[in-house]
Amino acid sequence: MSNKHFVNDPVRLLNSALSSVPLANPSLALDAENKIVYCKPSPESHVGRVAIISGGGAGHEPSFVSFVGDGVLRAAVSGSIFASPSVKQIYSCITRRVNPNSGVLLIVMNYTGDVLHFGLASEKAKAAGVDVDMVVVADDVGVGREKNGKVGRRGIAGTVLVHKIVGALAAARTEACSLKEASALASLVAANLVSVGSSLAHVHVPGRAVTSDEDDEGSLKPDEIEIGMGIHNEQGYKRMKIPKLPELVEILLGQLLSKEDKDRNYLEDVDKIEGWVLMLNNLGGVSPLEMGAITAEVVKQLNSTYSIQPKRIFSGAFMTSLNGNGFSISLLRLVDTGLGEGKSMLDLLDAPHESLGWSAPVKQETWANGDRQTQSSESDAKEEPIPPSGLKLNVSQFSHTLSSALKALIKAEPELSRYDEIVGDGDCGSALKNGAEAIIQLISANGISPDAVITVSTLAEVVEANMDGTSGALYSIFLNSLAKALREAGAGEASLGVWAKAAMTALVSLRKYTPAQPGDRTLVDALQPCIISLVEGGDVRKAARAAREGAESTRGMKASLGRSVYVGEVGDTPDPGAVGIAVLMEGLAEAV
Amino acid sequence: MSNKHFVNDPVRLLNSALSSVPLANPSLALDAENKIVYCKPSPESHVGRVAIISGGGAGHEPSFVSFVGDGVLRAAVSGSIFASPSVKQIYSCITRRVNPNSGVLLIVMNYTGDVLHFGLASEKAKAAGVDVDMVVVADDVGVGREKNGKVGRRGIAGTVLVHKIVGALAAARTEACSLKEASALASLVAANLVSVGSSLAHVHVPGRAVTSDEDDEGSLKPDEIEIGMGIHNEQGYKRMKIPKLPELVEILLGQLLSKEDKDRNYLEDVDKIEGWVLMLNNLGGVSPLEMGAITAEVVKQLNSTYSIQPKRIFSGAFMTSLNGNGFSISLLRLVDTGLGEGKSMLDLLDAPHESLGWSAPVKQETWANGDRQTQSSESDAKEEPIPPSGLKLNVSQFSHTLSSALKALIKAEPELSRYDEIVGDGDCGSALKNGAEAIIQLISANGISPDAVITVSTLAEVVEANMDGTSGALYSIFLNSLAKALREAGAGEASLGVWAKAAMTALVSLRKYTPAQPGDRTLVDALQPCIISLVEGGDVRKAARAAREGAESTRGMKASLGRSVYVGEVGDTPDPGAVGIAVLMEGLAEAV
Repeated sequence: MSNKHFVNDPVRLLNSALSSVPLANPSLALDAENKIVYCKPSPESHVGRVAIISGGGAGHEPSFVSFVGDGVLRAAVSGSIFASPSVKQIYSCITRRVNPNSGVLLIVMNYTGDVLHFGLASEKAKAAGVDVDMVVVADDVGVGREKNGKVGRRGIAGTVLVHKIVGALAAARTEACSLKEASALASLVAANLVSVGSSLAHVHVPGRAVTSDEDDEGSLKPDEIEIGMGIHNEQGYKRMKIPKLPELVEILLGQLLSKEDKDRNYLEDVDKIEGWVLMLNNLGGVSPLEMGAITAEVVKQLNSTYSIQPKRIFSGAFMTSLNGNGFSISLLRLVDTGLGEGKSMLDLLDAPHESLGWSAPVKQETWANGDRQTQSSESDAKEEPIPPSGLKLNVSQFSHTLSSALKALIKAEPELSRYDEIVGDGDCGSALKNGAEAIIQLISANGISPDAVITVSTLAEVVEANMDGTSGALYSIFLNSLAKALREAGAGEASLGVWAKAAMTALVSLRKYTPAQPGDRTLVDALQPCIISLVEGGDVRKAARAAREGAESTRGMKASLGRSVYVGEVGDTPDPGAVGIAVLMEGLAEAV
Repeated sequence: MSNKHFVNDPVRLLNSALSSVPLANPSLALDAENKIVYCKPSPESHVGRVAIISGGGAGHEPSFVSFVGDGVLRAAVSGSIFASPSVKQIYSCITRRVNPNSGVLLIVMNYTGDVLHFGLASEKAKAAGVDVDMVVVADDVGVGREKNGKVGRRGIAGTVLVHKIVGALAAARTEACSLKEASALASLVAANLVSVGSSLAHVHVPGRAVTSDEDDEGSLKPDEIEIGMGIHNEQGYKRMKIPKLPELVEILLGQLLSKEDKDRNYLEDVDKIEGWVLMLNNLGGVSPLEMGAITAEVVKQLNSTYSIQPKRIFSGAFMTSLNGNGFSISLLRLVDTGLGEGKSMLDLLDAPHESLGWSAPVKQETWANGDRQTQSSESDAKEEPIPPSGLKLNVSQFSHTLSSALKALIKAEPELSRYDEIVGDGDCGSALKNGAEAIIQLISANGISPDAVITVSTLAEVVEANMDGTSGALYSIFLNSLAKALREAGAGEASLGVWAKAAMTALVSLRKYTPAQPGDRTLVDALQPCIISLVEGGDVRKAARAAREGAESTRGMKASLGRSVYVGEVGDTPDPGAVGIAVLMEGLAEAV
């Protein structure tokens, strides 16, 4: 239900949203009456610099108001949702919200209303003596020459690359640029810029009547995509059944780059290409996960089909269509700006800034070093073997005792499963049985090491690999902690006392990963009294009795950890995990 | 249709998305097999630093893989969509993808699978001799103590503040921190962090069966909102009819901050509070415009209800639930880190970084200067009067001639409207009539100045204020350009030659804002030959004839600018705008 909104009144929505921009960047201010976000005047940034202004309809945030900030725009004027700002607003911005003394450059997108209103404001400002220029960006290749006629292409997301590059030139600290230079650079960037979009749905504008996709003539069918759709739901190139992503990207890149597409082929030949910049723009409602997949596919095909490896790749929501379920691809061809060292398009793209809308935290050095950094870490190192501890155990005795106990556990599987079917998801018995069988197999394959730490670590690995679910992870954590505690005990004989103390340490470490305490109806109800008994008395038989008592105490106990799935009444049933511990300990006691 | 996706296969989707991360930051690498994004080793950043690792299910991008980068995470491990990564993946990350020699800190969110898998991996790594610690973040207050029991709160978007702060400490260039310090700081931040979410819909996971809202028991009704919903569609606090935004924010802030909410009130009392940080998180499918309105409302109520003015405000998509139509609010209470100068929570939040997920371009100085900067520009300056040009006109003659011509235009209104009803949207006649009437009123109120530039500028303003639509803007642009050209003519008498030359300049300037040429069926068909005739012959009568001929030539002409709305066949109808020019010029010729 993409027509559900947190704010439905479009006037409140816009006014409130505009007021949020200076909250997130205190160097900005809002002229609420004229819907202008502008940089507060400050000596170093306001005087002697060409003021770059942009604007257009609302609903494309962060464009344009959130591109205001040091290093990008000096001010931006917002219209209502999908509607151009008025001449009065724009004129007010030029004459009152920036310092116009070093010239003002308006960067606008090619929509009739924007061009006329910004144009009229600029003519008024010129008549009043302000040095103003205006550059119109028309990067959208979606609608070809034949259809768009003399009106030309629309402006879409690529426009923000013009903002960033020209804004950085105007803000450059070493020497101010002239209005003529800024204007020429904006035109140069615009001339080397192509974009195209694609959307799965029309976007719903808050406050407008909700029409179902079927009723609304303009909307798309559930299996349809529109290639080249504009950022105001405008008609694009064509509609088709949603293709696989590779096919979609092939169509879009063809529209951007193919020399054969005579209705497009908008990039005029140049002498020297210095590289390419790729920008993937989220129209607002595509998950970042999907944007990642789209980015990867575009980069792959740019390389394989066009031998283009972009020098910068930006992916994010730069110019939205509210929360539109679509994206656009923009390609900027890098050419010589003629402005000298440190003023290439890349330099200006990488220049520092404080614009909330332009997200590009990667530094120029990092981009430059990217390919040179070592890739050696990519090659997988071998797992290192577990280092010996010097803590010895008697292999044949250990193997015999453990095997006997595990066989008892396997035998108890039907009983444990029955308990778990009543109170849990029924897999406790089989999980324990799987783990036990895997260890028995290890023993019979002579997998027990005379080094206690190596043995317990190996058991932990076997349990991890063979027991699913929460209980498997808990047993593995216990065994790994046990191995670590045994290592800390130092070299010597692994006496019952050493085992008991290490088990206590492992129990404490288990607490970090489960909130279970005795009384919560888990295996801890048997494990904890058992280990305490071991530490206190050093007697396996007593410890086994303590485990059994603990397991019996869970009969009728209510589970207090919220996440188990109970399919029946607990009644008199004990916790199967706790009973498993008791069975294992009784088996050990029997065999010792 | 939010269940429409560009990629439906969840495995391809994730693998492809992961591969895109290093494309946008070349200092990163991907271990595709283990779904680990990690910083490539480099001497300055890899050695002698605690390695901060995070991770969890996919579908929350940019969390966690896009938070990897200099200054934040060293590595992140991704599970499948909404599923924890395996122990093997995490263990591989700890032992092979970071330098573990100075200690490894795992920051994970409080979900059973994540806690157990990261916990087991950390115990395994400890057993193998690596110094590992793990901090679990549980910032979500949505589900209160009674319901969440011993399992505790879930972790949501506030977690990224832990990443940023602890990551900056670990990366600090002056002196490395110890694992103990990093771990203690992570716990301190987590203890002072509260978050809560709210969603308008369940999110659809690519590849899963599509169920309609009505059929799916778990989904929300068209007028319902869920307070406290988790980032995996989990049940929250309650469902209710969508309230107005102020009411919703009141509920959410109460859950975060109210001391009266005994089931929550999660922030324990501290001696000294240094301030607050606010983070608004987009779950992926809310338009940036709406996020702005939500941010503004939250800031307003924080101040009015709780006297909190956050020292930093971040708004964006930090931890999504795919493209979920919801948001969360996180509040971090700033307390003393005890780490000394330059290591406060704010310092660490502001520290430089290269993480794609953390978007915060505003510098510390800018935040610090925010309140001190002058607000003087907020006060509206008065409109400056138009400076005189010294170019004189005869007021009575000008007024008489213009009035006569405008009256002719008003008389022609029904004819123009009829033409426009056939071929356009029918408002051309009335727009011209409104403009003409407003100018006549200006004349009768003695509004004509003996200074030609002031007069034309005033006419431009009157036309702008009284004529709607494209034609109004075009006339205003023409008149403003005319004023500018007249000013450039210099002081003296405004002869017909001066007017003609200035009109020619204004016509050329009009071309910048409309692609219309003679032959396109617009007012240019009459205006251009009329002005050319004036320049050539200096005779108003001849110019009027040229205008009429131009207007007549539009009969049967096809419009070639794509944006007009045609309701009927053009047939023999002339363009009403062009006829308007002819009528006006004939009126002038008559009265001269």
